[in-house]
Amino acid sequence: MEETGKKREIERLVRYLQTRDDNALRAFIDELQPYDLGEIFFELNGIHRRRFLTVLQPEEIALLLEELEPSEQKEVIEALGPAKTASVLNLMSSDDAADLLGKLDDPEAQHLLRDMQREEAERVRDLLRYPEDTAGGLMTHEYVSVYNHFTAEEAISHLRKEAPSAETIYYVYVTDKARHLVGVVSLRDLLIAPPATYIRDIMYERVISAPVDMDQEQVAALLVRYDFLAIPVVDAENRLLGIITVDDIIDVLIEEAQEDISNLSAAGPTDKGAFVPPLRSAGRRIPWLLLLLLIGMMTANLLGLFQKTIELLPVLTVFMPMIAGMTGNTATQSLAIIIRALANNQLGRTNYRKVIRQEGTVGIIIGIFCSTLIIVMVALWKQSVALGVVVGLSLFCTLLIGTLVGTLIPLLLNKLNIDPTVASGPLITTLNDVISLMVYFGLATFFIHQLL
Amino acid sequence: MEETGKKREIERLVRYLQTRDDNALRAFIDELQPYDLGEIFFELNGIHRRRFLTVLQPEEIALLLEELEPSEQKEVIEALGPAKTASVLNLMSSDDAADLLGKLDDPEAQHLLRDMQREEAERVRDLLRYPEDTAGGLMTHEYVSVYNHFTAEEAISHLRKEAPSAETIYYVYVTDKARHLVGVVSLRDLLIAPPATYIRDIMYERVISAPVDMDQEQVAALLVRYDFLAIPVVDAENRLLGIITVDDIIDVLIEEAQEDISNLSAAGPTDKGAFVPPLRSAGRRIPWLLLLLLIGMMTANLLGLFQKTIELLPVLTVFMPMIAGMTGNTATQSLAIIIRALANNQLGRTNYRKVIRQEGTVGIIIGIFCSTLIIVMVALWKQSVALGVVVGLSLFCTLLIGTLVGTLIPLLLNKLNIDPTVASGPLITTLNDVISLMVYFGLATFFIHQLL
Repeated sequence: MEETGKKREIERLVRYLQTRDDNALRAFIDELQPYDLGEIFFELNGIHRRRFLTVLQPEEIALLLEELEPSEQKEVIEALGPAKTASVLNLMSSDDAADLLGKLDDPEAQHLLRDMQREEAERVRDLLRYPEDTAGGLMTHEYVSVYNHFTAEEAISHLRKEAPSAETIYYVYVTDKARHLVGVVSLRDLLIAPPATYIRDIMYERVISAPVDMDQEQVAALLVRYDFLAIPVVDAENRLLGIITVDDIIDVLIEEAQEDISNLSAAGPTDKGAFVPPLRSAGRRIPWLLLLLLIGMMTANLLGLFQKTIELLPVLTVFMPMIAGMTGNTATQSLAIIIRALANNQLGRTNYRKVIRQEGTVGIIIGIFCSTLIIVMVALWKQSVALGVVVGLSLFCTLLIGTLVGTLIPLLLNKLNIDPTVASGPLITTLNDVISLMVYFGLATFFIHQLL
Repeated sequence: MEETGKKREIERLVRYLQTRDDNALRAFIDELQPYDLGEIFFELNGIHRRRFLTVLQPEEIALLLEELEPSEQKEVIEALGPAKTASVLNLMSSDDAADLLGKLDDPEAQHLLRDMQREEAERVRDLLRYPEDTAGGLMTHEYVSVYNHFTAEEAISHLRKEAPSAETIYYVYVTDKARHLVGVVSLRDLLIAPPATYIRDIMYERVISAPVDMDQEQVAALLVRYDFLAIPVVDAENRLLGIITVDDIIDVLIEEAQEDISNLSAAGPTDKGAFVPPLRSAGRRIPWLLLLLLIGMMTANLLGLFQKTIELLPVLTVFMPMIAGMTGNTATQSLAIIIRALANNQLGRTNYRKVIRQEGTVGIIIGIFCSTLIIVMVALWKQSVALGVVVGLSLFCTLLIGTLVGTLIPLLLNKLNIDPTVASGPLITTLNDVISLMVYFGLATFFIHQLL
């Protein structure tokens, strides 16, 4: 919905709410998508929200809750009261219900679980056992499964029955009596097959599934690779536990991408909202900054070693930001390239040597180009070829070092099974400050007689 | 497939290829997913690849091609020869065929289009007209649509006929005689509905669709927001042109996330492969580095203004990297937070003031914390309270400036409808170098009598 359209819709809704025109309200709500329901709900004021909630069917409130952020969910739950909330929770997908209850205080969650239907509560309790960022934490119990001795016709009529409550009916999972996952068949294949065909004759036997403890990033990679709409989750004995649907995987992909950006910028953990109390936000950012500050003081200390050189040749200082900055910049570029390649699974551990050689070559090319340029510029500007050569030579060395640091650190972290994006730009930049300035002043001190 | 399993599979395949055991080969291929087909194909040597291609059905080659990167596709096309390639192109999804042909030289593409079936070639030519990163460039013609006067039963039997060639049969789009999009109904709803129900009575009329010229990022946002498996594409008159399926949208999301990381690191345009000839890679990175180099020389020039201060107080230089570095670091953190919020659509243009105030407050908190610390450290280390105060005061000012620069630049770019991620970390860092060192030496020069 675009902005002006939305505004008009909300005015219409408020009119219906005020005049208590229930027929018009019903027709209005029937045409809304769950997302729109959420959008519109939060444009209403408190009185209208409560009135709106009384008009919605429990199924609709369930859909609405699935669209909301945790803080917004809490508000709706409070307005509903515990009894109605429990009945709405019964109607939610078990994964969404578990996510919601997982965000509440434990006593409140336990209370609601007791008020829910036994079977539903059991399902949700089961899901709450798995860590949030694993296959188990993402899966839902609302899938459709059939036995391999069903016919296509039997399977379709089973599907018709299950359709209203299933997350997806487009993949039908096939199990044996002991719930072992033995095959999968798509609704598409079921529809094309002659009605009397046995499922075992049309099912696809090599099912790709995710172990229940698999990391969510790997689950996402699996689903993306095979272009599936859902992926089954199994335990160590290959028993079917649940499914994960593509919409939840998309949320994972978006979350992980944002985490990468946060890590790379050392901006601290991701928040759902843009607005965080400043003290909390500062508190998150300070640990990193403190580390960087200490490295900065260490750099100051090391630079103290070259106090004499600086006193003899104060002109050296004007090129410090350029040398340090350029080193950090090339390192950040290499870092991005390596992280991109790792995220794409393009770097088997055997390719490490190849990519290091490649980035090293790039560093040399960039180094030759930039340092030649700087030699000419400095020589002309400061009328000293010697100074130009020292600055240029330093730049060459540090650009090469920067490229290699930006390449090696993420590779090393990956080898140690640490997320390479924690090798944030700021950290790499700060480390390169130290290294590059040591090289620069080291070279200048070595050539001090040529420079004076 | 895990690594060892894959190796054994390939050995098995090679054995079948060598012994020309066509039955075993067929059984082997039938159990492969398209992705596995692509994986395995590139593990074979040249002779086995060509032999493998002769065993595959045209439909399977079509699936294989859809999985491959452009350079790999070219290799397969050459092995197939133009006549067979054209017949395979007929069987590919029109969007994938268009993507493939769009990557070839124009004469070769035109030649293949002439060899294709008229109708298929027409569809592909049509798709080639749209820019790659718009809804038109992503859509496919392989969708299922019905008229609104069909019954559920008629619709399902129509679906059965169309299923083998459609990209998805899970959403059925409803049009009037003039192809205007008037509704959508899911296969799920069709299955549940009594067979004689008219489509117009069960269809959802408020269809969410993407205009054909909509940017791919917006299309992705739309599909993600509504958790759809596909989204219809319409022209300005709301006529149905095609659909975009969720797997293509996932590719867009991944591509855009990687583009963001590249932009933020100024690493140059994204490549599909990790391995790029070093000269080309350097060529991409040099333009940015050149800009940063020039800013670095400008900084050197400006620092020349403070030559006298530096000569009088060489100790000032040792704190330069710390001041400049910290400013860049806070700026990068703010940048990441703003970009994350913009990507999440959390910043309506009315919230700008709120977020600026928030980040400003964070800057002040961080500034007070870090500068207090630095005053104490410098005063103790250099035995000069005046020096400590000048360094600390500079740090406070520059941290505040850094936070605001990192906040304002992406907001400004967004307001100008420029992708805010082009405000890369390196650019912001380099700009902050200049600003922060000017503030530092400016303050030091002002307080020079207290310092000496």
